[in-house]
Formats: sequence, structure tokens, C-alpha cells
Amino acid sequence: MPTFARRSVEEHADHIAGLLARALETETETIPVDDAAGRVTASPVGSPVDLPLFRNSQMDGFAVRAAEVADAPVILPIAGEIAARALDPGALRPGTVVRIMTGGVVPEGADAVVPVEDTSPGGEPDTVLIGRSRGVGEYVRDRGSDIRTGDVLIPAGVLLASRHLAALAAAGITTVSVRRRVRVAVVTTGAELVAPGTDPVRGQVFDSNGTALAAAVSAAGADVVVRERVADDHEAFRRALATATAAADLVLTSGGISMGDYEVVRETLEPLGGEVGSVAMQPGGPQATAAVDGVPVVCFPGNPVSTQLSFEVFVAPLLRRAAGLPARRVSARALEGDLRSVPGKRQFLRAHDDGAVVRPVSGPGSHLVAGLAAADSLLIVPEDAVELHAGDVVEVWAL
Amino acid sequence: MPTFARRSVEEHADHIAGLLARALETETETIPVDDAAGRVTASPVGSPVDLPLFRNSQMDGFAVRAAEVADAPVILPIAGEIAARALDPGALRPGTVVRIMTGGVVPEGADAVVPVEDTSPGGEPDTVLIGRSRGVGEYVRDRGSDIRTGDVLIPAGVLLASRHLAALAAAGITTVSVRRRVRVAVVTTGAELVAPGTDPVRGQVFDSNGTALAAAVSAAGADVVVRERVADDHEAFRRALATATAAADLVLTSGGISMGDYEVVRETLEPLGGEVGSVAMQPGGPQATAAVDGVPVVCFPGNPVSTQLSFEVFVAPLLRRAAGLPARRVSARALEGDLRSVPGKRQFLRAHDDGAVVRPVSGPGSHLVAGLAAADSLLIVPEDAVELHAGDVVEVWAL
Repeated sequence: MPTFARRSVEEHADHIAGLLARALETETETIPVDDAAGRVTASPVGSPVDLPLFRNSQMDGFAVRAAEVADAPVILPIAGEIAARALDPGALRPGTVVRIMTGGVVPEGADAVVPVEDTSPGGEPDTVLIGRSRGVGEYVRDRGSDIRTGDVLIPAGVLLASRHLAALAAAGITTVSVRRRVRVAVVTTGAELVAPGTDPVRGQVFDSNGTALAAAVSAAGADVVVRERVADDHEAFRRALATATAAADLVLTSGGISMGDYEVVRETLEPLGGEVGSVAMQPGGPQATAAVDGVPVVCFPGNPVSTQLSFEVFVAPLLRRAAGLPARRVSARALEGDLRSVPGKRQFLRAHDDGAVVRPVSGPGSHLVAGLAAADSLLIVPEDAVELHAGDVVEVWAL
Repeated sequence: MPTFARRSVEEHADHIAGLLARALETETETIPVDDAAGRVTASPVGSPVDLPLFRNSQMDGFAVRAAEVADAPVILPIAGEIAARALDPGALRPGTVVRIMTGGVVPEGADAVVPVEDTSPGGEPDTVLIGRSRGVGEYVRDRGSDIRTGDVLIPAGVLLASRHLAALAAAGITTVSVRRRVRVAVVTTGAELVAPGTDPVRGQVFDSNGTALAAAVSAAGADVVVRERVADDHEAFRRALATATAAADLVLTSGGISMGDYEVVRETLEPLGGEVGSVAMQPGGPQATAAVDGVPVVCFPGNPVSTQLSFEVFVAPLLRRAAGLPARRVSARALEGDLRSVPGKRQFLRAHDDGAVVRPVSGPGSHLVAGLAAADSLLIVPEDAVELHAGDVVEVWAL
């Protein structure tokens, strides 16, 4: 007998969210900044330095005392040259200027930079004609004007992209504390399954669920740490489950949870307190969950489309949130044509969304794996809909 | 003297698109399906098999001759059982049914499946009461009803996601021909640069451009195959350039292209026919390109924000397209407050977009690397704008 007779999609989603809550709160780990793209900061990162590190020039030109060029044009002697390179230029002697490159240290005493295009040769060797005055601070980047020591450079919970890594590097930081990725084990079951690349005999099918779930887990920002395929063999499934729970924060299974015979997942998990039942959706009606050795196990039906859509509906949103990834894109679209639906079940139809209207691209069958590949979105038909008409507005999920 | 005096952003973008066109047309390579997520198919993949591979049951129930249950209720003897597993059940004997599981081979002679919920025990052992009739083909998945041998399973140019890999696996396919990723070399220059994690002396700064460009190249779907940092030393730069052009389809450099002295990139590339000049944008005015040993070299100015935005403007869109990734998200937003701009230059301001209005989050300076990290978008101020007012609509790029 099923543990739950009939759950709504929301009820089952809430149940799974509760079951997974603790597993998704992974500990932190410290990794090199150069490897941290796509990871989420575990805590705020304070800047260990002022940026800029030192007062420097915004332009190629001449570092000056603003007061000495206030009556420009004026000719002044060039006391030296400051490139953008390791160099402490000392103080600017009164009545002189120094040539300076962008990024060069502005010498003590100087308080403005005159860009090179506002200057010309002064006539005498080692002199320059300053053609226009510049106010105090012009073209000078003050130390700490980007960020000051101790200020938050990157807040906690930020999904790190190149610009964040650049800021960390600019502050001299080489490692960053991020949330560990969620570790997921994928166990596919079914006596009829054989590995792609082998020669099936009549009655066997290629296992696509292992490939599908592994790729979908990665795309949701988690790590696949175990991947096993087992026949409808209780001992083999128990061994795979033990391997999975030992290594993973979360175990996903496909197959073996219907009410028929040879349902190895159901038969193994029910005595361990697993909950098996039916959710008001199509595809994907049979669903189950368990906690084994404290590790949540989420079980999907074995039909390939059912497995993939169940993951999308129940687990992908949780993994994406844990990984700091944006939520799935949901749109409202007009139906291109009429369609009929099964009352009492939410239908997830494989569809093409052209940005204005949406239409199904394959039948509703849970075996239509090529049809799913041809879709770019899911068209959601609500539980209470029996007939929908062209122009009716439906919810569409981008795939 | 500059090779080009003043290009518009579009002119320089077009120039780079032309320069890179051939480099972005990479050859194909064959890789395992399980590693192919995020890659782009090089050619259409035909299905080597019919899917389903064989006629099978859509439900747990009984395989029947539809004509024999047309007058249901009717009691029939159960001749056997067909699980979803390797089994060729032979033909269905007239006047009998076989128990069948979802996915099981529908035996020759049977032309419908009656779901188990429409049946009950027949009274006598090994008999079943078929409670309702089913038409020919009901609950039977025909061989090839998803896809037929030779039909296109995945078209060319598809960015492979989990559902595509699942379809390939379901057809027994283990390898797929995809476009090789574009190989990019990153060479950062500047005598003032030191590696993050070291102790800079006064005048030195941490190199953030290597980190930024490497991460941005990866995010744009290309591979970083060389990463070098060189001082303003012609011989070292020539060596790095030789390493880069030997390994990469495209070389990116930062720094060394201004009109000042110590401009190692400009001084090395100009004699080789490189084009160096100014583009009407801020940040990122100085820009350069070259082709060295037939490999395109795109050179960005060295200020960290200039480097990062130049990549976003000129190279990221090309790499993303080559990798089959969607184009950057561009929106129209109302300005939250007034702002002034430099006429004649397109400004790329670092901004926060709250979905309705947009506002700058840091100054326009090209050294404000922490300010860029704090932004979630770029606010584009057109060349002809001098003043913009609250409520004016501007273009915004999502970062």
C-alpha cells in the first residue's frame, strides 16, 4: 500500500524541501580564487588593503602642484620621470614637475596631474609648457578611493563571476571561503537497463537516466559523486545505496517505485520508513522519498521523461538555490492551438516557446525521450484544466 | 602615431569580428556523451535505432487482443507474465492474456494493454476479470513512435543539455561530434604588476587582469590554454606571444598599448602590422589588434576595469556565439537620477539594475575594480549624451 495516496505537486515539493533542508546547508571550504568562478561566498570578504594601494596618476602627463600651474600657461623644469612600475619617487621639489605615466605613484607634494595633451615642450631642454591649469586632485586617484582596508569587498552569498575574482585578485587575495557544492549520488535501477554502447537483447533498453540525472545535477550547480546502475536486485541496490549514502549529501534514484512487483527501490526503502505514493502530475505520478543513515533519498519513476521532469520539478530548484544560481525562467504565453488534458493532474507538456506563443512538440507519453530533447520548454497545464483553447495563457518553464 | 585615430565602438567591434572570424570556426572533435553538456553539436546526429526499441506496455496490466475484450467484462486465462526486463515473450496464444509490466515487450498477437486497475481476479486460479474493453493500440507504445532509425535526434548547432544527452544515451550513443572549444591565451603586461599573494613594494599593484580574463573567457565558453604575466620587457613579451600563438586560436593581452613610453605591446606589435589607436568609449579608449603567425591578437588597455569591459564589449559576444551560448541580456531601464557624460564617447557605467530603474554604483574611473565587483550591470550612455535625467530610458547590460 502506498504511504501517501495522492499528493499535490506543491505538497510533494514541500515535503522534499523539508527533507533536503539540512543536506543543502553544506559546510564551507577554502579554494583558490582562480578556481572560484561559479561558487558562492560563505562569508563577507573584507579588503586586506586600500585600493588603490597608493595615490597614483589617472593619466600619462605631469605631476604638479596645482597652485604652481594656476596661472597656466607656465613653463616648469622636469625633475624626473615616474613610470607605472615599482618606484618610490620621493617628494616633488617645489617649482618642478615630474613626468608620470598612468598608474605611476604621485609623489609627495604633488596634488594634481596635467594630462600630456595639455602640455608641449618648454623650449629649453628638460622643461615643459603646462598649457592649462588643473585643480587639486584632478587626475589623481587617491589611495583607498575604490575601497578601504576592512570594508566589505565581496558580501556573503555572492555567486562569484570574473569581476568578483578580479576584485579579490586586485586586493592581493589568493583564496576564498565558499560553500561546498552539494554532493549528489545517482542510482538508476531496472532489470531492463543496459549501458549505452552495448548490444541490447529484445526487452532491454539503454539507460538514459544515469546520463540525464548526472548532467542535470551538474547544471544545477551540484557535484555528482556516485553514479551506479543496478538491476532489480535487492542486494545490489542495498550495496549501491550504502555507497551512495556514505559519499553524498543527497541520493537520487530512478525506477522501482511503482505498485507492481519487482519494485526494488520501494521494497527496500519502505521497511526503512520510506514514503511511497502518487503525486497529481503527469508524467511522474509515482514518487517516493526516504532518509537512509540520515541522508535524504529522493526517488523518481523510471520512465526517462518522468525521471527528468521529476528532477526539474522537485530537486533542481533546491539545488540551484543552494548553488546561488538564478531561479528557472518562468513566462506566461498564449497557446498556439487547443489542447485537452487529464483532470486532476498537472501536466508538464514538452513544448516550443517562440517568445509569443507556445505549442506542444511531442506527445504526453513518459517514454518520449527524443521528444523531450526536441523541446525548449515545458508547458504547464493546471490540475483543473480539461480543455484549453488557442490564445489561453499558460505558464511556461524554459528548459 | 596611432594606426587609427578614432573608431566608434561598432567600427572596432566589426574589425575584431572580422579578425576573429576564422579562429572561431574551430574543427570538430568526438567526445563522450557524458562529458558533452555545454558543448555544441557539429553535425546532426541521426538515431541509429527506433525508439522505443520494441513495442512495449505503457502500464502495468494485461496484454490482450482488443477484439477478445470488446465485450468486457470477460474472464480470460493468464498465460504468463512479462516484466520490464530482457525477455522475448513469444506470441500471445488466442484466448489468453499475459500479465505485463510498464516497459515490458508486448507479445506478438496482442494489440492492447488493459491497465491493472481495470481488472480483478477471475475467480479460478490463473484467470483475470477484464473489467473494461480497450481499443487496438491503447496503452501500447509502438516501436519507433518516439523516433525512427535515421531521423535526426539532435540537429547541428545545439547547445547540449541534460535532455539531449539523455536522448543520445537512450539511442545507445556513447560519443558525439561537437565543435572544439575556442582556445584562448591570456597575456597580461605591466612592470608594475605582481602576483596576488606576494608583497608589493610601493608602486606595484596586484595583477587582477589575468584572473579576470581567464574567468571571463571560461564563462564565455572558451578554454584558457595559456596564461602569462610579463613585465614591460620586449623579449619576455615576444616569448610569451610565441607561446600564446603556438597554442591558441586567439590571444588576449592587457596593458602596454597607450601612446606613452614603455608600451611593450604596442612597440612589439606595430612593426608586425598591428593596429593601435583609440575607440570612442570610456573606459577602454586605447585599443589594439594584430595577427601574429596567423593568430589574432586582441589587446586591451591595462586598467583593470578597462580590460574587463573591453572584453565584455568586443570579445565576449563572439566567444559566446561560437560556444552556442545565449547572447547577453540587454534591457531598457529608466534612470534613477540625473547624470552627466563626456560627449563623443560611449560610457559604460557600473550600475545596479533593480528591474525597474537603474543607477550607477561607482564612479567612472577605470581603476575602480571593487566598484565593478559591486555592480550587477552596465549602464550604457550613448556618445551624443551630455546630460541624462531621472526617468530617461537607457540600455542596460546584465553582468
